[in-house]
Amino acid sequence: MTTTRAKATATDDTDRTDDVTIAYVGGGSRQWAPALIRDLALSDLNGNVRLYDANHESAERNARFGNWVQDREEAVADWSYDATETPAATLEGADVVVLSTQYDPTETFVHDLDIPKEYGIYGAVAATIGPGGIFRAMRTIPLYREFAAAIREHCPDAWVFNYTNPVTFATRALYDEYPDVNAIGLCHEVLGTRSCLARYAREHLDVDASREDVSVNVKGINHFTWVDEARCNGVDLWPLLEDLAEREEARQEFTAEDLEGESVFVDNWQVTWELFRRFGVLPAAGDRHLVEYATWFLQGGRETLNRWGVKRTGSDYRAKHWSPAESDQTTDVEAWMNGEREFSLESSNETFMDILTALTGDGTCVTNVNLPNEGQVSDLQSDAVVETNAVVRTDEVTPVAAGGFPRPVRGLVRGHVDTQETIVEASREGDLDAAFEGFLLDQQVRTLSPDDSRELFAELVAAQEPYLDGWNLEDSAVLAESSAYPGE
Amino acid sequence: MTTTRAKATATDDTDRTDDVTIAYVGGGSRQWAPALIRDLALSDLNGNVRLYDANHESAERNARFGNWVQDREEAVADWSYDATETPAATLEGADVVVLSTQYDPTETFVHDLDIPKEYGIYGAVAATIGPGGIFRAMRTIPLYREFAAAIREHCPDAWVFNYTNPVTFATRALYDEYPDVNAIGLCHEVLGTRSCLARYAREHLDVDASREDVSVNVKGINHFTWVDEARCNGVDLWPLLEDLAEREEARQEFTAEDLEGESVFVDNWQVTWELFRRFGVLPAAGDRHLVEYATWFLQGGRETLNRWGVKRTGSDYRAKHWSPAESDQTTDVEAWMNGEREFSLESSNETFMDILTALTGDGTCVTNVNLPNEGQVSDLQSDAVVETNAVVRTDEVTPVAAGGFPRPVRGLVRGHVDTQETIVEASREGDLDAAFEGFLLDQQVRTLSPDDSRELFAELVAAQEPYLDGWNLEDSAVLAESSAYPGE
Amino acid sequence: MTTTRAKATATDDTDRTDDVTIAYVGGGSRQWAPALIRDLALSDLNGNVRLYDANHESAERNARFGNWVQDREEAVADWSYDATETPAATLEGADVVVLSTQYDPTETFVHDLDIPKEYGIYGAVAATIGPGGIFRAMRTIPLYREFAAAIREHCPDAWVFNYTNPVTFATRALYDEYPDVNAIGLCHEVLGTRSCLARYAREHLDVDASREDVSVNVKGINHFTWVDEARCNGVDLWPLLEDLAEREEARQEFTAEDLEGESVFVDNWQVTWELFRRFGVLPAAGDRHLVEYATWFLQGGRETLNRWGVKRTGSDYRAKHWSPAESDQTTDVEAWMNGEREFSLESSNETFMDILTALTGDGTCVTNVNLPNEGQVSDLQSDAVVETNAVVRTDEVTPVAAGGFPRPVRGLVRGHVDTQETIVEASREGDLDAAFEGFLLDQQVRTLSPDDSRELFAELVAAQEPYLDGWNLEDSAVLAESSAYPGE
Amino acid sequence: MTTTRAKATATDDTDRTDDVTIAYVGGGSRQWAPALIRDLALSDLNGNVRLYDANHESAERNARFGNWVQDREEAVADWSYDATETPAATLEGADVVVLSTQYDPTETFVHDLDIPKEYGIYGAVAATIGPGGIFRAMRTIPLYREFAAAIREHCPDAWVFNYTNPVTFATRALYDEYPDVNAIGLCHEVLGTRSCLARYAREHLDVDASREDVSVNVKGINHFTWVDEARCNGVDLWPLLEDLAEREEARQEFTAEDLEGESVFVDNWQVTWELFRRFGVLPAAGDRHLVEYATWFLQGGRETLNRWGVKRTGSDYRAKHWSPAESDQTTDVEAWMNGEREFSLESSNETFMDILTALTGDGTCVTNVNLPNEGQVSDLQSDAVVETNAVVRTDEVTPVAAGGFPRPVRGLVRGHVDTQETIVEASREGDLDAAFEGFLLDQQVRTLSPDDSRELFAELVAAQEPYLDGWNLEDSAVLAESSAYPGE
Repeated sequence: MTTTRAKATATDDTDRTDDVTIAYVGGGSRQWAPALIRDLALSDLNGNVRLYDANHESAERNARFGNWVQDREEAVADWSYDATETPAATLEGADVVVLSTQYDPTETFVHDLDIPKEYGIYGAVAATIGPGGIFRAMRTIPLYREFAAAIREHCPDAWVFNYTNPVTFATRALYDEYPDVNAIGLCHEVLGTRSCLARYAREHLDVDASREDVSVNVKGINHFTWVDEARCNGVDLWPLLEDLAEREEARQEFTAEDLEGESVFVDNWQVTWELFRRFGVLPAAGDRHLVEYATWFLQGGRETLNRWGVKRTGSDYRAKHWSPAESDQTTDVEAWMNGEREFSLESSNETFMDILTALTGDGTCVTNVNLPNEGQVSDLQSDAVVETNAVVRTDEVTPVAAGGFPRPVRGLVRGHVDTQETIVEASREGDLDAAFEGFLLDQQVRTLSPDDSRELFAELVAAQEPYLDGWNLEDSAVLAESSAYPGE
Repeated sequence: MTTTRAKATATDDTDRTDDVTIAYVGGGSRQWAPALIRDLALSDLNGNVRLYDANHESAERNARFGNWVQDREEAVADWSYDATETPAATLEGADVVVLSTQYDPTETFVHDLDIPKEYGIYGAVAATIGPGGIFRAMRTIPLYREFAAAIREHCPDAWVFNYTNPVTFATRALYDEYPDVNAIGLCHEVLGTRSCLARYAREHLDVDASREDVSVNVKGINHFTWVDEARCNGVDLWPLLEDLAEREEARQEFTAEDLEGESVFVDNWQVTWELFRRFGVLPAAGDRHLVEYATWFLQGGRETLNRWGVKRTGSDYRAKHWSPAESDQTTDVEAWMNGEREFSLESSNETFMDILTALTGDGTCVTNVNLPNEGQVSDLQSDAVVETNAVVRTDEVTPVAAGGFPRPVRGLVRGHVDTQETIVEASREGDLDAAFEGFLLDQQVRTLSPDDSRELFAELVAAQEPYLDGWNLEDSAVLAESSAYPGE
Repeated sequence: MTTTRAKATATDDTDRTDDVTIAYVGGGSRQWAPALIRDLALSDLNGNVRLYDANHESAERNARFGNWVQDREEAVADWSYDATETPAATLEGADVVVLSTQYDPTETFVHDLDIPKEYGIYGAVAATIGPGGIFRAMRTIPLYREFAAAIREHCPDAWVFNYTNPVTFATRALYDEYPDVNAIGLCHEVLGTRSCLARYAREHLDVDASREDVSVNVKGINHFTWVDEARCNGVDLWPLLEDLAEREEARQEFTAEDLEGESVFVDNWQVTWELFRRFGVLPAAGDRHLVEYATWFLQGGRETLNRWGVKRTGSDYRAKHWSPAESDQTTDVEAWMNGEREFSLESSNETFMDILTALTGDGTCVTNVNLPNEGQVSDLQSDAVVETNAVVRTDEVTPVAAGGFPRPVRGLVRGHVDTQETIVEASREGDLDAAFEGFLLDQQVRTLSPDDSRELFAELVAAQEPYLDGWNLEDSAVLAESSAYPGE
Repeated sequence: MTTTRAKATATDDTDRTDDVTIAYVGGGSRQWAPALIRDLALSDLNGNVRLYDANHESAERNARFGNWVQDREEAVADWSYDATETPAATLEGADVVVLSTQYDPTETFVHDLDIPKEYGIYGAVAATIGPGGIFRAMRTIPLYREFAAAIREHCPDAWVFNYTNPVTFATRALYDEYPDVNAIGLCHEVLGTRSCLARYAREHLDVDASREDVSVNVKGINHFTWVDEARCNGVDLWPLLEDLAEREEARQEFTAEDLEGESVFVDNWQVTWELFRRFGVLPAAGDRHLVEYATWFLQGGRETLNRWGVKRTGSDYRAKHWSPAESDQTTDVEAWMNGEREFSLESSNETFMDILTALTGDGTCVTNVNLPNEGQVSDLQSDAVVETNAVVRTDEVTPVAAGGFPRPVRGLVRGHVDTQETIVEASREGDLDAAFEGFLLDQQVRTLSPDDSRELFAELVAAQEPYLDGWNLEDSAVLAESSAYPGE
């Protein structure tokens, strides 16, 4: 087995802390960038941030905002911001790279949801897996191969943080293209589970606890991670969880009316509780993500989803609100800058700053990350990108040995890993027929007949053809057999 | 890894050939027993056959027939036949045991097909996997644990041939209960594939060939085996297969009308060709069996099945024709004995005699068998019952190292192995909730919502309760949650 | 794979910090106990320490000392000390158990060195592996099985720290007997390597650094661990190591005269450098320990050992200084208490306090520990006790995924694991002949002929017979064949 | 895992039987070639044999002899013989390739024995492993890479039979260079064990039995294979073996005098019995080969070897009798042809003809072969060349699944596989320092100090430099450090 653990192999920086260069690809973001800018201003680090975005104007806006924040009195750190014009200029010599972008337009994300729905597949988000998630991956992987190649050329030792969905596919593509990349995939879902467990501890154990007080042993693949140990300040939470799982609140049924007015992010933990009752381990991702992997909850369409307290991310929502970070909240930095809205410099609770601080030499941080498997999940194949806790220390991210799964859960997870690995392998040569094999394995697709599977695939290809540059459509037997793909 | 390879560990027989004792459990069969009797009469072996059947009368009829055959002039071997009254008396000191029986009545097999159909699951046979196959396994496993215990007591070194479906589950149960048993699971499907390949060789390569001339490298689980090498007298058949797969005959579509009048055993190889085109390896089982594992072909119900040339084994058929060997042909031995029908002593082409002959010291036989994995399929877990070729020699059956699968096929097979292993493990303590975890993993069940999955399971339990003796129904959380199971 | 990761499964203590009960088995120690007592007095924890020792008087002395220290003004924590009379009373309800004791007398440790020497085996320490180390293990394992059983009975959730050599065997015995034990094996060697790397960083990189600034990725088995990444405050030390390895100081040769007057603990890193040059990864244990595994350095006897800067722990040294912790320094606590020596309350730099502090809820600690493998070393078998870094947090010790080895090093390590696992498995039933199979595999023993191997084994058994209670000597074929064992 | 099972992938020969082209590289042999010629004359096959030898004259002599034999009346088959002048001409279009040659002169084989002896290593044969065996491998591997490349070019689908020692290294080199080669390594040792078991059966079980009646389950690496099941016509031989192992004849001790006058091939089975008693499985190779792997028997030099009934292959013997087949018997074909000696046409009992007959379509043959591991030995790494039984059928050689080893034996075998794989991997780039890592792992070398290990290696390189073409001597750090290698 080759070692794929993220590590810096040759750094001669004696003190990065004083001069960190951050390359932010997708830096025109309206949500995460403003938060990062404020966090940096309050940090112990100094340096320069290069913001790059396909929409250059948005990068410029955020650069202006970054420098404006630095002019506030409350800013304790020393950062400067520039909007850059090319990925190469952005990455050259960077210490840290943030990847949070996709180039394909909103309409493709609408296709991800709407076209499978025509075939009866009622995916909840289509951001991770399922036919929509797979096509999102197929559009994203070639771009992330390009990023990996550019990082190898311009900043081979940089720490790369990938926030882009599907996190597993995008992170895997980075390593597949450039095996020595120091990349980690990051996601908020496990943090959400820890917050939720802290709330249960407060409510039922009469303790004062927040997310930081809850530790979990977590493992799996992004958006389908599982917890088999959980403690709040050392107190084992398992007996509480087993008790709660049998209470009424863990056996609620919802209707469409109940959920009216709720955000698509609503999470009632009913999927979580049901899976916990069945398999004895606790899923650690939002219910809306879990259902895309644990596809029983999609059978019966909207009614079933709603019955478990989940709302579907409608394509209309996507059309309006789409951003790679899937936010429904954006920050109007112009309003702050022109005084329309009062500004106060407060830190977010993003783990990014915890990780960055630990990487640059200040303390130890334990948090969940996505990395190629080299033993941290003992019963998944090596090199597949898995999510577990990792220890972050100066210039080092090391996953912990999180063990394995009960057999039924292992079966579920392995099945999805097979799809992911098949797609990524197919992407090396852009072999569309090989990708279709992975598509066929997908649990959502397995509700279709062979003909419908092929037609759905072809229809998605037809709809998204301009954004599937890395794939060889011409020689595809699947497309040739299909009627949904018009051909030349 | 403990060695589970079938082997005789202590035999002091100097010459079994002259005095073989065969214990035939299920010996009242109307199809296979008469064939065996004729084969034995023409063999080089001599001995005694004990016929045991829950229906004692049928065993007595076959014993009479056996002795009647021995009185024919053409009978070259010396065999005697007895109908026995208990399994113990049947097994005591036997050299060879044939298991081909199930005790549960016809109605249970009808449930296996009809109850899932109410939930939209259009299983084709329900003999192997899927909700019906799993329940058939759940009824059968406890009985085969009893057989294993009796074999350990009465004939620990005997060679045990299991023909009972689901072959994987029944054979696995024998080994799980008595790890030193010398049991092999036998099935005709791979032989059928070889016959079919011989036909293709005759038709397209202009050679004279029969099943014996075709050799394959085969691996998988019973009814879901895959061939990745095939030769006819040394000539590689792969180029021919790749050619045929693209011809019109391999791309036929059928309607219900097309299939009218066809037997439920009709096999048009359309499922086979489609899977071959997709995955590059050739499935080696009847299409009606393949679809239960490759469940895309069940989606869309009867129309889809028929479109691929497959007919469903209707419950009416089951009600009329049910026998453990699933035959639609029975042999009227009375008619032979009373002269109503002319009798001629001819051998069948059953591999049983080939295997028995090789085991008793006459030559080497290579054929497909089901055995616990100890490396013969390199990428499935050890101890799972897998089907590959094996070499049969004097008192020895050794599987060949058949290698692994392309990743997508490995993913399909592993998923089913997870179900099988989960059910068998659950059966040790009769843990119904653990069995339900395996049920949930099943690909046919995954088209149901969580509630429907549970209700289908409970309804099957309720319908078959009298035949689920080995299972703990009282403490089951799944049943307690369900409305389909009446409770006490 | 069963999960063997150390963890607390059911603790209801809300705040251990205020009332920690420590059971110290071997608490009469003259070196480590006085250090612990001072560390505790300066800690943030409070509680009670029970000192147990086969030599009760020494435990009483340390209890007096402990309470005397608590009376000092400088003592900020609140601890009380008792000398206990039985293991049961010591362990009952304990939160923390320290195991640091062996019952067999000095003479056995002399045998470990002297008897193999008669056969030409010039072991350096005989504390870990080799014929002497194996017999030390064979005497120790049964005792540690007893401890494990007592812990299961009296304090099943306690954190158990094992310091007793051979650390691998003793820790493995605890888990083999009581798989749910929360035991970790601790050793100073890797800490010594980190200190040494810090010194190199100071000397050659002109930085101010101490052990805490050096982080390593370490893996292997106790006293035979290997580092493949090392950083000092984030600066990669590999280029420095590769440079140093080729300098004169890394290619020194020593004679007996050069080493005269040196302690047996002298460590010139010449073995370390040679192994690093050959295999490209850095061993992380004292040279005197490494040579027992990397047995080329023992061939040629004293001359070879000395040439590489290593002194043998002579049996005369053992006879005088023996203690389980192998100290050559003891602390005269009486002199402190009666005023003969001036006392000042200073903390040691033992990691025990760091671990204990983290376990009881104060911060995160990353340090090397010995634990059953569940993936942390990806190419060693599961359950073998391996040494890697682990993250210590509230009531939780989780090893990191440290990856695998280059093939030649993997071969070396696996060979020793085979010996260890064979001996531990043999100890379950006390099967002496099975233990001899492990003895034969040992690299030091492999320099002997079959007859000499057997006679050495028998002679060690004969000499240590009173301390081999757990082993079945009567039925041993090896002893029966030997002339060195007198028999009845 | 890539499938490495030997197989023919594209043959369009409809009937090879009538026209087989055999390319015999090393065809000037005085022992095996004359036997082959007679066997072919009595076979059911016809064709042409091309004899190639570095010594062309010897090839011409055998060609004359071959054609002379065909002129005998008793010759039933139709074969013609040619002596060819280049490997290319020999291989072009061949159906079968026999490799049985080495180019390096006698003196190198003398070095293999004599130089290690100066360092106290008393290797018995130096043909397989140990310092001499490794150097023989290092000289042979580059040549076999050339053969593999030539086969790929001139006869990619041919069946390649390798008889050249070290069989494991040479066969592994063929596959490493050309993964699709249909090569099998062949050796007589397991056949010898079967013959010996047949003799025991005759002597102790009062049955008439020959080698063909004995079947074994065998596994390991060439010259270090192990049997864990043995039957004679179905009768389990294990009880007999366990009985014999405790008899006096299995506990004999020999002196040099006892062995005087014996051939170096003398085999008293005392090593075999001792290993069987210790580990419970039966080694299946000549004692003189076993001791090179089970190196306890070499410790103590000649006296120990002799005590176990083994004679060393002295270098004087080598100097006189060297041939790649290590024969001490040569056949004077000239004497036959000129009538000095009476000729009669009799077949040998070589398995080559059995295998060739089965491959060309006549029957099934089960015999031991060396092939890359793809599961046949379940606990050795994949791709390592292992020896097990295989089934030979028309154009197909499939190893059986032979299972794994008891842990101690697994440890022994794995250690040697690590050496072999390290050397073969090093040979890809000719990296001499990497090869030295494998050399250091060798059990015979491990009796040397680090300095002696290096000097022995360098001295062997110096002595054999002209025959180490494929290796990079210039950049070797090991040579640079040594005094035994003169440098430029």
